[in-house]
Amino acid sequence: MSVAEDLAGRFRALWDELAPIGRDGHSGGYLRYALTEPELRLRAWFREQADGRGMPVTDDGNGNLFAWWGDPEAGDAVLTGSHFDSVPHGGAYDGPLGVVSAFLAVDELRAAGATPARPVVVGAFVEEEGARFGVPCLGSRLLAGEIDVDRAAGLRDSAGVSFAEALGGRPAGRRPDLLGRFAAFVELHVEQGRALVEAGAPVAVASAIWPHGRWRFDFHGEGNHAGTTRMADRRDPMLTYAFTVLAANKEARLRGAHATVGRVSVAPNATNAIPSRVTGWLDARAAEPETLTGLVDAVHAKAADRARRDGTEVTLTEESATPLVAFDGGLAGRLAALLDAPVLPTGAGHDAGVLAAHLPTAMLFVRNPTGVSHSPAESATDADCAAGVTALARVLVELACR
Amino acid sequence: MSVAEDLAGRFRALWDELAPIGRDGHSGGYLRYALTEPELRLRAWFREQADGRGMPVTDDGNGNLFAWWGDPEAGDAVLTGSHFDSVPHGGAYDGPLGVVSAFLAVDELRAAGATPARPVVVGAFVEEEGARFGVPCLGSRLLAGEIDVDRAAGLRDSAGVSFAEALGGRPAGRRPDLLGRFAAFVELHVEQGRALVEAGAPVAVASAIWPHGRWRFDFHGEGNHAGTTRMADRRDPMLTYAFTVLAANKEARLRGAHATVGRVSVAPNATNAIPSRVTGWLDARAAEPETLTGLVDAVHAKAADRARRDGTEVTLTEESATPLVAFDGGLAGRLAALLDAPVLPTGAGHDAGVLAAHLPTAMLFVRNPTGVSHSPAESATDADCAAGVTALARVLVELACR
Repeated sequence: MSVAEDLAGRFRALWDELAPIGRDGHSGGYLRYALTEPELRLRAWFREQADGRGMPVTDDGNGNLFAWWGDPEAGDAVLTGSHFDSVPHGGAYDGPLGVVSAFLAVDELRAAGATPARPVVVGAFVEEEGARFGVPCLGSRLLAGEIDVDRAAGLRDSAGVSFAEALGGRPAGRRPDLLGRFAAFVELHVEQGRALVEAGAPVAVASAIWPHGRWRFDFHGEGNHAGTTRMADRRDPMLTYAFTVLAANKEARLRGAHATVGRVSVAPNATNAIPSRVTGWLDARAAEPETLTGLVDAVHAKAADRARRDGTEVTLTEESATPLVAFDGGLAGRLAALLDAPVLPTGAGHDAGVLAAHLPTAMLFVRNPTGVSHSPAESATDADCAAGVTALARVLVELACR
Repeated sequence: MSVAEDLAGRFRALWDELAPIGRDGHSGGYLRYALTEPELRLRAWFREQADGRGMPVTDDGNGNLFAWWGDPEAGDAVLTGSHFDSVPHGGAYDGPLGVVSAFLAVDELRAAGATPARPVVVGAFVEEEGARFGVPCLGSRLLAGEIDVDRAAGLRDSAGVSFAEALGGRPAGRRPDLLGRFAAFVELHVEQGRALVEAGAPVAVASAIWPHGRWRFDFHGEGNHAGTTRMADRRDPMLTYAFTVLAANKEARLRGAHATVGRVSVAPNATNAIPSRVTGWLDARAAEPETLTGLVDAVHAKAADRARRDGTEVTLTEESATPLVAFDGGLAGRLAALLDAPVLPTGAGHDAGVLAAHLPTAMLFVRNPTGVSHSPAESATDADCAAGVTALARVLVELACR
């Protein structure tokens, strides 16, 4: 058995421990919402793995866990890791791959006899997806002081449980004492696209996260009877919605940007009723901020024009907007050269995107044969996951052992 | 006070008794689902009204109530009435107007000293809208034997309660003994359109109910990450859905038919996920069956063509189809001449449409200033409601007293 095959086997053995946790038997996807039973089991697993490696675990008071190889009070620590929580019926790799790879990279360093000059820390952030409490990267935002603590504490899930209640207390919020001890953060993540398939490489280094946001379009018309209302007398907001969906797709393609309407809410949502209201959420992303602004403006203008023709009204609300995150260029270049890996931008938000404003931060991506993520079809081969561990171990040697 | 004003005042007094029952304070619409608390209160009110008029009430074992002026065992009875249940956030008039008008028409006959030669019966049918158990005209279908009793018994509401459980037992099903005692059925209903506004008349007689049905379009694509999936790599079923909504609208306008997509369901319905599935329900209606078939075929062909371009798949399922209902032409002509009223077709299904296959049946429509129905904006003036009562009383004299 080759060294790579051996590592792939050890990856698989650890991975299989997580596979059943929170898996939906019907969809094959995962329901690992933050601080619910499946995610709490994953957090318990994290503590067991850390204990088994003699790594003391600290909690930052915001729900983020850190396992320390080295003195937790020392500075210049190198942080790696990711998150456990999933979107509804999400894939297995988005998040957990970064945590599992981090523990295995520690094992690689130890097996090679490497001696860190600075602490190596494996982290697991809470509520990265925002699938339970609505705000993505909630844990890293709290740690970095990028969200008001009272607001975060009061966020509620669909059953009415607040984040503070789920956490067991008010979150600690900004922790400059802790953040100040980290010299760098490297998050390994499954790729959410097919660029590495096309490049023929197992691992890439991230250059930037595209600016992105969520915009809510509320289309108001006149609820009426579907059977009896003449077409000419209708003010049907579903028509304006449908036109806007197609316009968003067209405008994004014209600009090389991404636009998606994946969520819709209809009132009253009855087969025999013309809706009185349709709400659609636009997720839009682009390489440059001005492209993103132009895209959203163009979709809004087309929606408003169509609304006039349909006799409906449209209002646009920006629900969130995240500016361009450029990862530390020097660090990315250094890691790309070290690993001989391509450098790629991404359209997805990550805890690394939040922390990049506070400390030198980098991301590694592992090849995803389907390119699919946030879906049970998300995948990575054991060999590529092993290549990811190897790459991460080399990065830790570079950053923590020299 | 004129006679008409006096009647309008008595209408208003009775109407105000019902106004608060099941009204949603926020929307101003009604939540009067069959056999739920608000509708049970309306049924109790029905029994009080019947008692106050000395009219014994019978239940047909299917949840339909009948109040008898005359011997319930006698034949050749003239049935009038409608239903109490509403669509979600529906209007006040759709249904209850026909029941209230029926009791007031009995009062009119009695005040005029009329003596029915045959029983006059006020009826209230259960689950006309299908808003709770999914099958419209459930009560009249059961009475007429047009739905399998086991199927009806097992229909479940969104909370999992079966129709049999809500009813308190297995429905009786077809009642030829009861149906055979009815010589005619006349249902008075608020108009669900603006034809009477344009005709300048308060009351019309129905000629026919357009053939209509519900078709479910399931669009299947590939769930994926909204941020990272390139536009060219997507198989987004929301695009195919949106195109189909617009195609249905266009094809209906071209044919002088009605098409509505007022209900949609999306999986996973998350802002940052390209959907894996979108389901839309098409409600389509036309004056002639061949126009309706041509409309649905054209929409399906356009959906399938777009699905090929989107890399998605579409399947079409006919969930219900109701053929053309032509009301008894002789009866409609006789009533139109008696009332000097226009004769109109309608796109809406009614219990009268179900019973028309079993006994001579007619409908009266009362002018609706907004033309809106299945919405809180549905309305009728007290004067027009009084005109409806007067017209119905004349019809009862014509059918039951000569």
